[in-house]
Amino acid sequence: MRLRSLLLGSVLSGVLLSSAVGDEGMWLYSNPPRQKLKEKYGFELTDEWLGHLQRASVRFNSGGSGSFVSEDGLVISNHHVGADALQKVGTQKKNYLRDGFFAASAADEIKCVDLELNVLQSIEDVTARVNAAVPEGLSGDEAFKARRKILSEIEKESLKQTGLRSNVVTLYQGGAYHLYRFKRYTDVRLVFAPEQQIAFYGGDPDNFEFPRYDLDICLFRVYENGKPIKVTDYLKWSKAGAADGELTFVSGHPGKTNRLLTVAELEYLRDLSFPYTLTRLRRLDSLLTAWSGRSEENARRAREDFFSVQNSRKAREGGLAGLQDPTLLAKKSAAEQTFRTRLAVNGEFPEAAAAYDRIAAAQQVIAKQFIRHRLLEGEHGFESEAYGIARTLLRAGEERPKPNGERLAEFVDSETASLELNLFSDKPIYEDYEILRMSDSLAFLAEQLGVSDPLVQKVLAGKSPRERAAELIRGTKVHDVEFRRKLYTGGSAAVDAAKDPMIELARLVDGEARSIRKIMDAQNELRNQAHAAISRARFKLEGTGNYPDATFTLRLSYGPVKGYVDDGRNVPAFTTFGGLFERAAAAKQRPPFDLPPRWNKKKDALNPSTPFNFVSTADIIGGNSGSPVVNRAGEFVGIIFDGNIQSLVLDFAYEDQVARALSVHSSAILEALNKVYGATDLAKELQTGRRKR
Amino acid sequence: MRLRSLLLGSVLSGVLLSSAVGDEGMWLYSNPPRQKLKEKYGFELTDEWLGHLQRASVRFNSGGSGSFVSEDGLVISNHHVGADALQKVGTQKKNYLRDGFFAASAADEIKCVDLELNVLQSIEDVTARVNAAVPEGLSGDEAFKARRKILSEIEKESLKQTGLRSNVVTLYQGGAYHLYRFKRYTDVRLVFAPEQQIAFYGGDPDNFEFPRYDLDICLFRVYENGKPIKVTDYLKWSKAGAADGELTFVSGHPGKTNRLLTVAELEYLRDLSFPYTLTRLRRLDSLLTAWSGRSEENARRAREDFFSVQNSRKAREGGLAGLQDPTLLAKKSAAEQTFRTRLAVNGEFPEAAAAYDRIAAAQQVIAKQFIRHRLLEGEHGFESEAYGIARTLLRAGEERPKPNGERLAEFVDSETASLELNLFSDKPIYEDYEILRMSDSLAFLAEQLGVSDPLVQKVLAGKSPRERAAELIRGTKVHDVEFRRKLYTGGSAAVDAAKDPMIELARLVDGEARSIRKIMDAQNELRNQAHAAISRARFKLEGTGNYPDATFTLRLSYGPVKGYVDDGRNVPAFTTFGGLFERAAAAKQRPPFDLPPRWNKKKDALNPSTPFNFVSTADIIGGNSGSPVVNRAGEFVGIIFDGNIQSLVLDFAYEDQVARALSVHSSAILEALNKVYGATDLAKELQTGRRKR
Repeated sequence: MRLRSLLLGSVLSGVLLSSAVGDEGMWLYSNPPRQKLKEKYGFELTDEWLGHLQRASVRFNSGGSGSFVSEDGLVISNHHVGADALQKVGTQKKNYLRDGFFAASAADEIKCVDLELNVLQSIEDVTARVNAAVPEGLSGDEAFKARRKILSEIEKESLKQTGLRSNVVTLYQGGAYHLYRFKRYTDVRLVFAPEQQIAFYGGDPDNFEFPRYDLDICLFRVYENGKPIKVTDYLKWSKAGAADGELTFVSGHPGKTNRLLTVAELEYLRDLSFPYTLTRLRRLDSLLTAWSGRSEENARRAREDFFSVQNSRKAREGGLAGLQDPTLLAKKSAAEQTFRTRLAVNGEFPEAAAAYDRIAAAQQVIAKQFIRHRLLEGEHGFESEAYGIARTLLRAGEERPKPNGERLAEFVDSETASLELNLFSDKPIYEDYEILRMSDSLAFLAEQLGVSDPLVQKVLAGKSPRERAAELIRGTKVHDVEFRRKLYTGGSAAVDAAKDPMIELARLVDGEARSIRKIMDAQNELRNQAHAAISRARFKLEGTGNYPDATFTLRLSYGPVKGYVDDGRNVPAFTTFGGLFERAAAAKQRPPFDLPPRWNKKKDALNPSTPFNFVSTADIIGGNSGSPVVNRAGEFVGIIFDGNIQSLVLDFAYEDQVARALSVHSSAILEALNKVYGATDLAKELQTGRRKR
Repeated sequence: MRLRSLLLGSVLSGVLLSSAVGDEGMWLYSNPPRQKLKEKYGFELTDEWLGHLQRASVRFNSGGSGSFVSEDGLVISNHHVGADALQKVGTQKKNYLRDGFFAASAADEIKCVDLELNVLQSIEDVTARVNAAVPEGLSGDEAFKARRKILSEIEKESLKQTGLRSNVVTLYQGGAYHLYRFKRYTDVRLVFAPEQQIAFYGGDPDNFEFPRYDLDICLFRVYENGKPIKVTDYLKWSKAGAADGELTFVSGHPGKTNRLLTVAELEYLRDLSFPYTLTRLRRLDSLLTAWSGRSEENARRAREDFFSVQNSRKAREGGLAGLQDPTLLAKKSAAEQTFRTRLAVNGEFPEAAAAYDRIAAAQQVIAKQFIRHRLLEGEHGFESEAYGIARTLLRAGEERPKPNGERLAEFVDSETASLELNLFSDKPIYEDYEILRMSDSLAFLAEQLGVSDPLVQKVLAGKSPRERAAELIRGTKVHDVEFRRKLYTGGSAAVDAAKDPMIELARLVDGEARSIRKIMDAQNELRNQAHAAISRARFKLEGTGNYPDATFTLRLSYGPVKGYVDDGRNVPAFTTFGGLFERAAAAKQRPPFDLPPRWNKKKDALNPSTPFNFVSTADIIGGNSGSPVVNRAGEFVGIIFDGNIQSLVLDFAYEDQVARALSVHSSAILEALNKVYGATDLAKELQTGRRKR
């Protein structure tokens, strides 16, 4: 599972949650569950322990989490988090994503393309300053502009003062605004990746399932000025790794949850957003299955997108199944009614009492625009690297001359470095693959909006989707990085003069895309204001001791290593290497249950009782992929890589009977590095915390 | 490709075509293109030649075509036409569909489950009688009833008089009604099938592509009274098989084309029908891919459905691409305008002149009901064997006591034998697979109609789709053939008393399903009347020398064996066994380009220059699968098994630049039987036309 899946297709984000139960919670580092941990587990959470874990935790901006595991800048994450980087450095001859990679020496480490890592340095509450800048009584549109202005001001000021990447994070859906400052790393080099066959053993059929047997890891090293950085806060490797029943902690970046949306918002997800998203994902699934099947090289070019599509599809299917279960919605509905009654009786929170209807009204406007918004502003109608680049160039020309506070969010000064990293990336772009995606998405656009829609007519320009896509992809020059630089530097004048067909297409669409975005922004501002009112009432009535919905910022979760009972069947907490070989034999090594040749050869060298994967009750969601799992001593005992199928409902509510977080056990990592890959120096670096010199 | 794909999701059928070009045409046996053949090819089509080919041609009611190839009842068709039968006689231990089958002796031939073959005996024009029974001025609903009554009367009378299966076929979308009488065979035994790996070499990625290397054949033997039937009209095997440039004929059962629908009807297909169907097919594709991947036994249970879904998906994608190509629709539109102008100027055909707007109006009503119709009456919301059986039992109880002419079409006397063959089939039904499909389709129902739809609420009964599906499938008894017999014989009273949960679900849905069907029937009757008026005008203005749209009845097509140029690349008409082994080696024998072990072993025994597959310009469509290809002498030279991707547009218009029909060459069949399978007696039977005694 990964973040990307959960950012697709929806514009909602966190709301305040009612009081947490069991081991529930994706806790803010600035408001950790000290008392709960003490009461239930007798664990004393110190500032020192927490600060260390915070600085050892890493965010992958391609989607996912990781951690420092040596003083020499070594970072561990999942193979599927590293997949984007593996894909971009791969070639027809060197299929690193499929076949794995190992840098035998420092000189062999490969610099990743456009990969950015962030490490959280500080959190500052700026709620009062933000709210003071947005007076009451403004329209949704005006309020949105005022808020965008103050947010970009705070971020720019912080960037200037500290030199750190600075983002104001909206928590409790507008109940609070926190300024997060990150150290930013962009020279990240590939150290080790296993074969995808073992990293993603069982493939799509076993994805989101347990028992599992996946060595879903990838190792990187962070450089500055051409040398590995020196890290003080890295995680020490546990000798024994995670044990059954042991309390463990997860430190990572859960992408997005929807736990206390109102019933109106959930119904919108159930009836419109999720079904649309699934229609699109299944279409892409079909397209990429067929195309990948045609040749090995096709499969390589599409591999990372294909995985991402299949993964998102399954995650969404699980989420929609949750929303279609009347029990879940009945509970949500009852809780909402109870709280609304309490507000009505209390009488002190008229704004909160009125908020529910306001949200429902905003949601209706949003629903009307939703599909057009996804197709035009979300680029679902123009899927290709080229269109994304073309639109960025077009908009950069228009936005960058504006005052910082008036620009579209992605063009403000605090985002410039990340934007340019992506825009000038020299990752490979394949013409045939671009035409495939573009022509399919143009057909999707025509299907969704109707061929006779005036914009569709203009976009297709009297041609079939296939013809039009070929003409655009073959005609554009945006695949050339130098061309991009020239237009970006030259601004609007250079962009206009280029008359590039893909940029001209983006221009054709941009008027409507921008105006729909404006409507959506204004309605979401109104929703945020309403949620903020509910949050304020909740803070007063229930205290501030709770956690906000996930926002792809650093959170702490916890829970014991623990098996479960599935449909009457006992599922133990651990799998082993022995179990892996049994599974492969039972499936007669047929894909996706075949093992890499190296694993078959080394079977006898491996200790079959080595724990491989394990489950815990920690509260996680997409984006947590690659999160370190640590014990009470703060030692690395495993790494999150998935949730079981029952955990997909965590999007909407915590559950600990059958929902489980899945991790690779720390011992499996050492055993595999030593016995299968002969990467003994790397294994030693993990164990000692320093590189062999 | 196969018929099923083309019956999915649309209720339209044939209309009169404007004058045929090139080798265009799926010609009626009662109105063959004698003059065209004579003029262009100097070929004299005699009644004797045609009658022989007619009686040698076989229709598979599971979807597809075939032909007699020995006097001892041997029938050849495609592996993918036989797949349904192979699936039904397979077990976990004997996976005939995947691994193939060969009956070494007569005693080893396996009787197929619920397979019905039809051989056309006679054609009679009953247009005048049908039209006389439907007076002018009736409402759509009344006219539909009157027409249903006269059709069932004619069919029942014919069945009684001749004992032959009798169906009135609607041609030229109501321009003509012909009574087709068929000899019906239900004791059909499996003789030979190759491995699916070679029958469907290249799998879904290569489906609808050329060059191809598929041994897509399956052999059956027809029995009566426990003995093989004696056949006078069987096809003699050609010594050399098809040659480049040679004129060939195809005799088979094209399922359905939409060549002269009005523009309003085509827009409906483009904007509603095809997109809905594709959304559903892609969903099923995802579902079955994931489920099949979980285990070999899952894959076996789903295999035939899975193939069918993938095949239909590709066919529909090709069709929709055609409809989205503005060139095609512009041509259709121009032709329609020209003809309408001619009608207006002429003034003698006021009904035809008004017909276009009438069709558009009916089409609008149909569009409003379309999705509900597919979900409820088309059972897309309740996919499972159990629901189909339950509804048949429910409706049989209600329909059978009614006068023959007032029943739903599938319950009239002339259909009873086929209905009972299916209803009492003891094909295996798997509980887990039933729950999988049912729960997914209930979720689809909820997505399409909305969870809050009153019928959806009743159907789900407060449970999630998954829970509800499990409860229904585990609770019903309709999987028991004896139970079905009891209820069918006992009629409504027995059905009501059973209180079977699945039958009760069907009852819950049936009121609305029937009323939507009634609306659709009435609107289609109005469309038919309008098309009939256009047809009459066309007959007068352009003559009756043309062919109607396909209707899954016997047709004759023709065209030379001929390669083509694809995107600048020369594609020769033939592939060879040598090419097969090269393809497998180039793909490193990775699935779906791996060869069955037997083929790898026998490589050296095979003559590499043996022609394997070939292409011709014959006008075919799904349903033609398994059609014999014959030469001027009426000898068997090959067997149709697919069309290339460019041929998918034949649904709407004939094309002969790049659209091609794909066949297995007759020589490849002999060479494979002799050298790979050691089935020398069977090969000899094909060559001599009689079984070894």
